[in-house]
Amino acid sequence: MNKVQLNPVGWMSQLSQLEVAQLQDTTNSKLYELFRNCCLAVLNSGVDEDNYEALFAPYDDFDVKLIRRERGVKIELINPPEVGFVDKRLVRGVHEHLFAVLRDMLFMGNKYAFIKQNTPADGPSITDMVFDMLRHAQALEGNDELNTVVCWGGHSINQTEYKYTKEVGYQLGLRELNICTGCGPGAMKGPMKGATIGHAKQRYKNGRYIGISEPSIIAAEPPNAIVNELVIMPDIEKRLEAFVRFAHGIIIFPGGVGTAEELLYLLGILMNERNAQQPFPVILTGPAGTEAYFAAIDEFIGQTLGKEAQSKYTVIVDNPVEVARTMVAGLKKVEQYRLEMGDAFSFNWSLKIDEPFQHPFIPTHKTMSELPLHHDQSVADLAVVLRQAFSGIVAGNVKAEGVKQIKEHGPFHLTGEPEMMARIDNLLKSFVAQQRMKLPGSEYRPCYTISRAN
Amino acid sequence: MNKVQLNPVGWMSQLSQLEVAQLQDTTNSKLYELFRNCCLAVLNSGVDEDNYEALFAPYDDFDVKLIRRERGVKIELINPPEVGFVDKRLVRGVHEHLFAVLRDMLFMGNKYAFIKQNTPADGPSITDMVFDMLRHAQALEGNDELNTVVCWGGHSINQTEYKYTKEVGYQLGLRELNICTGCGPGAMKGPMKGATIGHAKQRYKNGRYIGISEPSIIAAEPPNAIVNELVIMPDIEKRLEAFVRFAHGIIIFPGGVGTAEELLYLLGILMNERNAQQPFPVILTGPAGTEAYFAAIDEFIGQTLGKEAQSKYTVIVDNPVEVARTMVAGLKKVEQYRLEMGDAFSFNWSLKIDEPFQHPFIPTHKTMSELPLHHDQSVADLAVVLRQAFSGIVAGNVKAEGVKQIKEHGPFHLTGEPEMMARIDNLLKSFVAQQRMKLPGSEYRPCYTISRAN
Amino acid sequence: MNKVQLNPVGWMSQLSQLEVAQLQDTTNSKLYELFRNCCLAVLNSGVDEDNYEALFAPYDDFDVKLIRRERGVKIELINPPEVGFVDKRLVRGVHEHLFAVLRDMLFMGNKYAFIKQNTPADGPSITDMVFDMLRHAQALEGNDELNTVVCWGGHSINQTEYKYTKEVGYQLGLRELNICTGCGPGAMKGPMKGATIGHAKQRYKNGRYIGISEPSIIAAEPPNAIVNELVIMPDIEKRLEAFVRFAHGIIIFPGGVGTAEELLYLLGILMNERNAQQPFPVILTGPAGTEAYFAAIDEFIGQTLGKEAQSKYTVIVDNPVEVARTMVAGLKKVEQYRLEMGDAFSFNWSLKIDEPFQHPFIPTHKTMSELPLHHDQSVADLAVVLRQAFSGIVAGNVKAEGVKQIKEHGPFHLTGEPEMMARIDNLLKSFVAQQRMKLPGSEYRPCYTISRAN
Amino acid sequence: MNKVQLNPVGWMSQLSQLEVAQLQDTTNSKLYELFRNCCLAVLNSGVDEDNYEALFAPYDDFDVKLIRRERGVKIELINPPEVGFVDKRLVRGVHEHLFAVLRDMLFMGNKYAFIKQNTPADGPSITDMVFDMLRHAQALEGNDELNTVVCWGGHSINQTEYKYTKEVGYQLGLRELNICTGCGPGAMKGPMKGATIGHAKQRYKNGRYIGISEPSIIAAEPPNAIVNELVIMPDIEKRLEAFVRFAHGIIIFPGGVGTAEELLYLLGILMNERNAQQPFPVILTGPAGTEAYFAAIDEFIGQTLGKEAQSKYTVIVDNPVEVARTMVAGLKKVEQYRLEMGDAFSFNWSLKIDEPFQHPFIPTHKTMSELPLHHDQSVADLAVVLRQAFSGIVAGNVKAEGVKQIKEHGPFHLTGEPEMMARIDNLLKSFVAQQRMKLPGSEYRPCYTISRAN
Repeated sequence: MNKVQLNPVGWMSQLSQLEVAQLQDTTNSKLYELFRNCCLAVLNSGVDEDNYEALFAPYDDFDVKLIRRERGVKIELINPPEVGFVDKRLVRGVHEHLFAVLRDMLFMGNKYAFIKQNTPADGPSITDMVFDMLRHAQALEGNDELNTVVCWGGHSINQTEYKYTKEVGYQLGLRELNICTGCGPGAMKGPMKGATIGHAKQRYKNGRYIGISEPSIIAAEPPNAIVNELVIMPDIEKRLEAFVRFAHGIIIFPGGVGTAEELLYLLGILMNERNAQQPFPVILTGPAGTEAYFAAIDEFIGQTLGKEAQSKYTVIVDNPVEVARTMVAGLKKVEQYRLEMGDAFSFNWSLKIDEPFQHPFIPTHKTMSELPLHHDQSVADLAVVLRQAFSGIVAGNVKAEGVKQIKEHGPFHLTGEPEMMARIDNLLKSFVAQQRMKLPGSEYRPCYTISRAN
Repeated sequence: MNKVQLNPVGWMSQLSQLEVAQLQDTTNSKLYELFRNCCLAVLNSGVDEDNYEALFAPYDDFDVKLIRRERGVKIELINPPEVGFVDKRLVRGVHEHLFAVLRDMLFMGNKYAFIKQNTPADGPSITDMVFDMLRHAQALEGNDELNTVVCWGGHSINQTEYKYTKEVGYQLGLRELNICTGCGPGAMKGPMKGATIGHAKQRYKNGRYIGISEPSIIAAEPPNAIVNELVIMPDIEKRLEAFVRFAHGIIIFPGGVGTAEELLYLLGILMNERNAQQPFPVILTGPAGTEAYFAAIDEFIGQTLGKEAQSKYTVIVDNPVEVARTMVAGLKKVEQYRLEMGDAFSFNWSLKIDEPFQHPFIPTHKTMSELPLHHDQSVADLAVVLRQAFSGIVAGNVKAEGVKQIKEHGPFHLTGEPEMMARIDNLLKSFVAQQRMKLPGSEYRPCYTISRAN
Repeated sequence: MNKVQLNPVGWMSQLSQLEVAQLQDTTNSKLYELFRNCCLAVLNSGVDEDNYEALFAPYDDFDVKLIRRERGVKIELINPPEVGFVDKRLVRGVHEHLFAVLRDMLFMGNKYAFIKQNTPADGPSITDMVFDMLRHAQALEGNDELNTVVCWGGHSINQTEYKYTKEVGYQLGLRELNICTGCGPGAMKGPMKGATIGHAKQRYKNGRYIGISEPSIIAAEPPNAIVNELVIMPDIEKRLEAFVRFAHGIIIFPGGVGTAEELLYLLGILMNERNAQQPFPVILTGPAGTEAYFAAIDEFIGQTLGKEAQSKYTVIVDNPVEVARTMVAGLKKVEQYRLEMGDAFSFNWSLKIDEPFQHPFIPTHKTMSELPLHHDQSVADLAVVLRQAFSGIVAGNVKAEGVKQIKEHGPFHLTGEPEMMARIDNLLKSFVAQQRMKLPGSEYRPCYTISRAN
Repeated sequence: MNKVQLNPVGWMSQLSQLEVAQLQDTTNSKLYELFRNCCLAVLNSGVDEDNYEALFAPYDDFDVKLIRRERGVKIELINPPEVGFVDKRLVRGVHEHLFAVLRDMLFMGNKYAFIKQNTPADGPSITDMVFDMLRHAQALEGNDELNTVVCWGGHSINQTEYKYTKEVGYQLGLRELNICTGCGPGAMKGPMKGATIGHAKQRYKNGRYIGISEPSIIAAEPPNAIVNELVIMPDIEKRLEAFVRFAHGIIIFPGGVGTAEELLYLLGILMNERNAQQPFPVILTGPAGTEAYFAAIDEFIGQTLGKEAQSKYTVIVDNPVEVARTMVAGLKKVEQYRLEMGDAFSFNWSLKIDEPFQHPFIPTHKTMSELPLHHDQSVADLAVVLRQAFSGIVAGNVKAEGVKQIKEHGPFHLTGEPEMMARIDNLLKSFVAQQRMKLPGSEYRPCYTISRAN
């Protein structure tokens, strides 16, 4: 049995004895099982695999223990994958990621009851929790220069698209902007990789490559090698809130349902009239050849959320320099606005997020089938519902809980207004056709059915 | 009306909106009054005055407000003393101290219910709180090299003694040791001042001059100019625990009742048999001429706590180099012990402190008169009681609550075993004779009476 | 006319008025023409082109001026290529490279009469000059940890080979080794690029990517984007000496005549019996498929320089991890040796280099045709001569002076011992066949003829 | 025999083998004897003694050797004074000072022929040398913020004056200004000591306390403990030029002939009409009670150099805050001027210094008696001559060469215009009466006679 003990780093090297005791108390919890899986995912950093079962299968005998010492806590890895080691020493970056997982999932999990997701319950408390998680991860300290660009996009994109995300990242890096993504492969990795070269050319020493993940997705999207700051939020809703309050601007690359979920979430918030004055640069971009893709997205947004939603973003195809310049120009407006409002640079307190966007949506066959997919509601409410629909499909595709349900009970059923259902169906079919649902190599079997009849 | 607004620094520049709201809620509390006074004391940093009434009198119209901003909290000073300003800009060190006061008293005060001192109640929780306060003040981060020497001694000492504390500090500084004191004048300032020169000569850049205070004493002992880290513990017992767990070694200079209190506290703990194996360098030292003073102290300890207690310290008179070398040799043993035990360098978790040493003692005429001053108890218990007796006299001398009681009801009464009372009486009289009770210039009127009869 | 003025950085921001005056005096010199071309090459950093005429042709109207200010000197670029600019601001890395060129070519050139190459003349003075150049470039300061691996190899290699150099660099970076190369594309860039990822994963902040070039080659091999320290040595011989005294170990990837020149230089020195005790890790490595290439090289070395020469290097094919581990093991021996000898870590003073290796060889039709290519001399002398032969072919291929001579007078003629000539011929033909002479895309026309008859 | 070997620090840790060889060649030179004495003076840092014979007497068996190592040079001390050691380890600051002495006296001495003082000969070359010495000592790098205040004044001042220099230094330190002095005791130490406290209060981490000395004075004024940068200029004239070009403003405290020499030098330069536009804050200041002293100085200046000279300085008595504010205001004008002129912040290139101020004056009985002390010349020339007269008296008082001459041949004779001689005589007598010539404790025997007749 191969054992490796790791000394704590960062904040985790200063725990009180009660805190260590509480950590150890988690060892038998359900949360701990999740923690063990996240550690395994982190240890597989850099491996191209989005099937958690395939990823985890070879490591059945892997385990992780917390070892209490007078002075704090150590992590003990039992039979860890070799991929993260160099000459028997764990790579420093992975070492740090493991303690970030421990910090966020178990330590902060104790504070906020991660697994139950029952606290906090009201909007302001959720926002405070998001802030507290980011602050505790020391992510806010360096975020006070309005230079953080959040990049969204598919984990499964083709080589042309991947190269394009690197190009955009390079142009952002040349302008000394930092990158924050969902921290997995594909469009989450490319911009970071490109930015490192741009940063190096500008001798920009403190480049930040921040990954914000959540326990249920991390196995399908393990942190890539570039990520030098990792934060695990408790669920997808808090992860999304972290993105939009942490970001100074957002770039959206081609992607599948996950990316669509993110876009719908963002537009739903920006359409809130109390955010009308707030400048928030949003750019949709891809290489030559993605014109049709973006046209389809744009059309879908127009048909479901309307013209105003469309006004919230700019589409730029095949022009990384233009993307970067547009972002820089947008950031200047953000700066002006925040100064006027006296708002923090490091966290967008003044962005209004309605509670329906904050409460966790747990996709089940029941909740999915009951989603009110129709126009008899405000566009904000519709945005919430559409996001939830796509969120459920992401879960059915790659998240353990979702995959399990699909396996047992068959696909989720979505039903609603025929026209809307047709549009959703078309969009999803195009994602399938473009291999955006899962990493290429296996045929995609949809985890959903769509009833066009009502 | 002169107003000055201060931007938050350090940890206080990253507060959530709920936290800011909670801070503002304190504004009408009794704690806030205390906070205002601490701010005033800090603003008078460097002023030689231990009479809080004299110190505060000229600043009746001084006030401090918390101003809520979207991005955090500002401190607004109204009619502040000029002494802390240079060309209308507040000295940076004082600025930092003010936010340290806000951080510890109000922010942490909210967490731990400072004013009521009713939580936490059990020993391990109290220790955790002490750890948490030090950690939150970022005092533990740099404390991992076994180079922190806590220096205790009188705030009112003569020039020869003051010069001697500087000499000792200089020799400690030359050996790259850092200084932690109660942060006031006299023996709390001298070692810091001396160490700065020693540090400069050794090109030791990160010299630490840590002051650990508490709300009720800070007005009588405002932080001196050298202190570059300030921590406010909620009460004297937690302050003492902070000292002994934070220290890697302790030096005790001549002083009055406060110093005696500290020594009794320390010996009471070191005599605990579970601490028998723990090396803990304790040196009593003073300039030529203090032989008799230390002989009297040593005799008092021998007569009350016994020979074992005497074995816990070394007395060195008139030899700063020898003091420093003895400390360095002692620290090597501490290092060896902590490595063997796996204990942290930054916080002495393995030191056993019995609960009676941890619970706050509130000196009143009643509690003081009821102190069981006799030998019909273990020496550890006696050490607790003696410490409380001296603690009460400190309060009666200089702390606002204590001074007020004395003013209203006359001196505290101490009573007990005749022989012991005689010894206490003699010791206290010698302190009075040597002007160790209060800063010179006014006649000292004892805040206590001692009944030798039982 | 587009003008850009650049403020001095690094050492060049502190010049005396005499020094500035001397710099300006160079403006009309022949050296200045060379300086102008080096600036142009640096401004084209990242462009894939090894034909200096093609590179320079579009920039006929480019010029560079030195502007004297009371406080120092500015560089003024006139009509510079746009490639180095981001939104009209010169990329910081290129900015630094330009001042490195100014520093080394003009400032140090003044000190050492660069262009005439007539000073210094004796061996120890040449070594001192090499040391002085590296020290003045502040390259030695960070070189005291025995972690600098010099990588040699072709600027024109295929994608498989390029990817392999990245893999090796990645494994070196994971082991916190720094990379020093000739600073151009191909095998000079790959290891640096790979190392950046390895460094990032290990959170190794101060990764060094040092490029050592010389004026006559820089146009054909402009510094790649990763180079964060650039040094220009006056000629190829001093550049080679800089490599071997600066290196703690050397890795040789597949390449053409330039790489062969480097290998012959290195072996010639290591075979010096006064270097017999000196551990010096030398690894020849390439991806699967390069077995034959290395076998040919190895055979050529065996046949010309003998078995002992072959014992000086290790060949490892298709195993980046093994390469890195072998290097790490070798560096441990270097450390032991330097400690025993009391030699500096940052500069290998104790390596003995005979003068023939130090004196510049100027390839002309005459000097080339007179090279004594036979075995009637020591192997050390033969190594010198063989190096010169290859050096001349490099010049004829890509260096301005050489290309011009070939254009005017046809190919160089090499003549000597028939068997040796046959071997040289075969080796060169294989380089041609493998497209190692020039970047792919144009047919290679040899700049030499070989007479096998004597 | 007690031997201590010291590893090189700073620039001296990177020497070429030729440089080390050259250093060793100096071992038998006359310069080396001076070097040995400077080392001894530096090792006595902090000792209060200005009689070099008394200082050196106990250390007849002290010697210093240079030890050649493959990688550089070590200093070996033989029988060094114990005062600089802590537990057998040399204090880091003294260690650095020793290598500063080696760097400036021997290494730069080799470059500039220190001992002969015959090179460089012309004005611009002398200025370049001064620049080169400061640059090489890395003193210019941090001097680019217009915050360096040069403080001049006596090494022998009374306690009231010394305390006042500390007060002024404290006020300067509070305003984040750095201090540069002649690096000895008295007025050269007080401002540094005060500034350290001001810097500490403002959390100003990189406080600079620069001492500029010269070989012939260093034994009488060994660097005080605060000096963290030491530069040794070859002679008094280059030391003075270093002061005025390095300074952003100058404060002059009470002192004796040395201080008068400095003031005359400064005024002679500032009166140069080509410096008329140049703002240069000069403040004469002392505690209450120095009114008469400054009145006498002011009168002497008025009578010899005239009204214009008097306009170049401000006299402020007993007001440290006002001194600091006046300096800050003056520095703002300096900033404006340098920006307009494009002059460096770190070195005042544009200040015009006529050659007579630059050439060394060697005081002998002959040169002193021939000084043309009369008004039949420009005031600038007169300033030169007066400075030389005072410079000679400084030498006769405390410099080895001067003291020796006086011992052998009796006092120097000064002669000239009767009225001027009377004024000089009166001024000198007042210095004697105020004990400004030598440290108190011994009776002062003048090293000069003054003939009032012509």
